[in-house]
Amino acid sequence: MPAKVSDGETRGWIIPIGGGEKKVRSSTILNRFVELCGGRDARIAIIPTASRLDDTGDRYRDVFAELEAGHSDILQIETRKDCDDEETLDILKNATGVFMTGGDQLRLSTILGGTPVAQLMRSGNARGLHIAGTSAGAAFIGEHMIAFGRSGATPKSGLATLAPGLGLTNRVIIDQHFRERGRLGRLLSALAYNPFATGLGVDEDTAAFIDPNNNIEVFGSGGLTVIDPSQLGYSSMADVGLGKPVCLTDIKLHILLEGGQYDLVTRTASPAAM
Amino acid sequence: MPAKVSDGETRGWIIPIGGGEKKVRSSTILNRFVELCGGRDARIAIIPTASRLDDTGDRYRDVFAELEAGHSDILQIETRKDCDDEETLDILKNATGVFMTGGDQLRLSTILGGTPVAQLMRSGNARGLHIAGTSAGAAFIGEHMIAFGRSGATPKSGLATLAPGLGLTNRVIIDQHFRERGRLGRLLSALAYNPFATGLGVDEDTAAFIDPNNNIEVFGSGGLTVIDPSQLGYSSMADVGLGKPVCLTDIKLHILLEGGQYDLVTRTASPAAM
Repeated sequence: MPAKVSDGETRGWIIPIGGGEKKVRSSTILNRFVELCGGRDARIAIIPTASRLDDTGDRYRDVFAELEAGHSDILQIETRKDCDDEETLDILKNATGVFMTGGDQLRLSTILGGTPVAQLMRSGNARGLHIAGTSAGAAFIGEHMIAFGRSGATPKSGLATLAPGLGLTNRVIIDQHFRERGRLGRLLSALAYNPFATGLGVDEDTAAFIDPNNNIEVFGSGGLTVIDPSQLGYSSMADVGLGKPVCLTDIKLHILLEGGQYDLVTRTASPAAM
Repeated sequence: MPAKVSDGETRGWIIPIGGGEKKVRSSTILNRFVELCGGRDARIAIIPTASRLDDTGDRYRDVFAELEAGHSDILQIETRKDCDDEETLDILKNATGVFMTGGDQLRLSTILGGTPVAQLMRSGNARGLHIAGTSAGAAFIGEHMIAFGRSGATPKSGLATLAPGLGLTNRVIIDQHFRERGRLGRLLSALAYNPFATGLGVDEDTAAFIDPNNNIEVFGSGGLTVIDPSQLGYSSMADVGLGKPVCLTDIKLHILLEGGQYDLVTRTASPAAM
């Protein structure tokens, strides 16, 4: 469960990005993130842990500097032990925003899961800390994370393998590189296990900005596919063998573009004003 | 518009198959087709026109013989002129079923369109002639045919190119090899132009048997993705440039397996009885 928001506090925004976001001044996604975090007063903590490349953190620090964010730090977290480092925890405590890079979401969950870093991110978000993640960083944000799976449009038993994520929200299950990697089937599979959550399929260079009231606004050049299984009529997930296709009826689908909104509470979609 | 069904007559079944159907005795799809056409009394006309291979017709004639269909003939139609051939037209007039093979649906529409062969298929279907098509043959069945398009999950302006098809039904737009080729985006694009039709995404080795009352029953090993845009809240199709993603809200989605049914009139899905 997400950390409890105390009276008088406002939860920070939660921002899954589909990967491949443009790392340039004109990018609406990173611009909006920096602005949310305070612009020239922003203190952004970059977590490059998902990536195995050495310069991933540096690239984002450069972009945030170009976007005139006040300050950004790279948290060097390679092991679970690194998550006890006092300097790292101090940076997190003073941050206004956290940005998790792409890579492998299982690195994020296995290295950060249950550590003081994860605890600070959760409690921080409940007090107003904005948390963004791209690609693997997006997958990791929710309570239930798609660890891996195969591509394809039809849901199948076992097509998506779920693992516990950071748990900033349990309202959504996120999939990234959505249209680019044909992931409708695996997102439907993930939802079919238990249709309480809403599925967010985030295209590359696209972000779902989830505000403190659970209203989503779409930024970027691609689409956000919202899958609402709340009116699911039937699922054969419990009855079919592993790897077999699954029957699902009465699923609602929305495809939203920049400026489009989706209210996770009322489950209503609004297109961008033209 | 489909040919009018006269009083006292019953329309024949319309059977789009997603391609790659098993051509063996145990195949539920071809078995069901032969049975519908009369079994040992069946007279099946095979139209291999979509294919550029010489033996496509022979392969189906062999399978239908194995399945103990009474009789089957291959219609040698390579040109529009062949569509005037008296023997060909006589075979069609006496057929209880027509089977169109895979290949390129534009060969079907350019060679058969507007000829006496197409006219006999349309009027025959209105009097009880069952018409099946696989892959390209499935695409060609409807009033509006997807001629070509690209893969991907997100609908885009121009992603699907429509052309007039045989016109046995205007209730559905059919796409085939559905999950195998990631065609959700192009089927959504085709529907977004005008959301009056229901989208049928037919997987390989899977068929949608559409009965005379417009109730669909699913046969085969894959899934039928039914896309119901009748409650579409918003489409930006008219406002975006060619190749740009399209915003669509409030689309209903069903994924049905063998034994599952969909009523095109009431737009309700029923899973297979377990």
